[in-house]
Amino acid sequence: MGRVTVRTPVTRLELGADGVLQQTRRPDTLTAEEPLEVRVAGRALTVTMRTPGVDFDLTIGFLLGEGLLHGADDVATLMHCQDAGDDGRPTYNVVDVVLAEGVPAPDVSLERHFFASSSCGVCGKASLDAVRLRSHHDVSADATTWPAELLLGLPDALREQQQVFGRTGGLHAAGLVSPDGELLVVREDVGRQDAVDKVVGWAAREVGLPLTGHVLVVSGRASFELTQKAVMAGIPCLAAVSAPSSLAVELAREAGMTLVGFLRPPRMTVYAGEQRLTAPVRQPVQPV
Amino acid sequence: MGRVTVRTPVTRLELGADGVLQQTRRPDTLTAEEPLEVRVAGRALTVTMRTPGVDFDLTIGFLLGEGLLHGADDVATLMHCQDAGDDGRPTYNVVDVVLAEGVPAPDVSLERHFFASSSCGVCGKASLDAVRLRSHHDVSADATTWPAELLLGLPDALREQQQVFGRTGGLHAAGLVSPDGELLVVREDVGRQDAVDKVVGWAAREVGLPLTGHVLVVSGRASFELTQKAVMAGIPCLAAVSAPSSLAVELAREAGMTLVGFLRPPRMTVYAGEQRLTAPVRQPVQPV
Repeated sequence: MGRVTVRTPVTRLELGADGVLQQTRRPDTLTAEEPLEVRVAGRALTVTMRTPGVDFDLTIGFLLGEGLLHGADDVATLMHCQDAGDDGRPTYNVVDVVLAEGVPAPDVSLERHFFASSSCGVCGKASLDAVRLRSHHDVSADATTWPAELLLGLPDALREQQQVFGRTGGLHAAGLVSPDGELLVVREDVGRQDAVDKVVGWAAREVGLPLTGHVLVVSGRASFELTQKAVMAGIPCLAAVSAPSSLAVELAREAGMTLVGFLRPPRMTVYAGEQRLTAPVRQPVQPV
Repeated sequence: MGRVTVRTPVTRLELGADGVLQQTRRPDTLTAEEPLEVRVAGRALTVTMRTPGVDFDLTIGFLLGEGLLHGADDVATLMHCQDAGDDGRPTYNVVDVVLAEGVPAPDVSLERHFFASSSCGVCGKASLDAVRLRSHHDVSADATTWPAELLLGLPDALREQQQVFGRTGGLHAAGLVSPDGELLVVREDVGRQDAVDKVVGWAAREVGLPLTGHVLVVSGRASFELTQKAVMAGIPCLAAVSAPSSLAVELAREAGMTLVGFLRPPRMTVYAGEQRLTAPVRQPVQPV
């Protein structure tokens, strides 16, 4: 199936202290990036550039994030189309979604798709309202708490699970943590949003939505779109290794989510929902 | 006009060696992220999440990258719509493009927009073909060469120009270098593609397309989409501080571009078009 990395000859140049340019020809490992076309009920819906692999989870996660599905049960079957590339072999770059009986085909008009999160002329506020209205899940009611050290342990746990990054340096990672602190799944992709879609699609199948009490951890920044995907899946906490954007913070506060940025042990910055983070549990001092 | 950063109170948590969680409340600076709606000839075309500022350049660059304009001359005027947010003040989040006389409105049907770079069933190869066909510029014919040390100096030059990054850690940067090595413009954004669109839009106005002999330098990875934007603007070299994807390399090789990754002085990796990079010019040894 999908290739996660590709080998290709490259030239390595290094300027020495003596001003001489050293030139080395060698093979290099690249992160694979290929287009995936998603079709629903026979109709082409979108093309996303992604790292091949777990395309079915990516497809389910994408459709959930867009509000076009309510859960994995809305899907009867998923299949790769039998299309072939120039070499006559299947490309596995088209996924066809057959909806379950009684599930209506999504409304995918140009306007709906492009403008679901921004009504004409009133931006920002309107897009936040749209997201809140679209989500079936109210994360603000989620009473789960986590000890701060649980979150501080996530970047290391994520890196341990990242199998491709070490070889190519080109991948974003996303992981899902259960309410009791277990890292359930880690997915990687050239696209941040694709990595999160793969995680949410997996969880929709294996855990079921909403993902009450779960933490979504990402290797990069927290954008509006990633925060939106968390809300749509009913995830009450997004923890990012890098910075959040202003709109991500605004959405997290309005939705009642916990949003952590700059998750870099022993520190982190809490931008919203800090009431869900608790001080470390310490052993009681034994009497001597 | 557009706010590039936003201040907000946050909680900083730090786990001490003694297991005690230090908690500090303080203001933090966030990178602004707001939706921009682009309208062409009165019709809403797309919404992109971007860091406000130079919205007109972003708009022109985006339309050029999509092949919907041929140059800045296709545009008669650009204006921010007079829409207002909840506070009654203009949001500056909608840009209206009035096309020059005789320029036809772009074909923006759902299928065309989504599937311009991927025909049904034959992906990868088909999308590369589509990009080559769509570009008005043949970068493979560009005979410019640059000394390797010119490229090796770009990451430092880019960082010096990045005014926001130091405060928020949340921005991608893109810069354009003239054939004789001058860093002409640097733009930043929460989105990598938006940063490049801002640069290309500026250059379309100030320099004119194609950008023969120019180098596009980016602070992050080189994706297919960024490589495509370079080809569409006639830029013969893309240099990225981080890794390229497989499809970026494939497109660069097919288009005859120079693609440099892991641009980290004193080293860089050349994935395509290495004939444009020359050894350093060294002073001849003076006879004693």
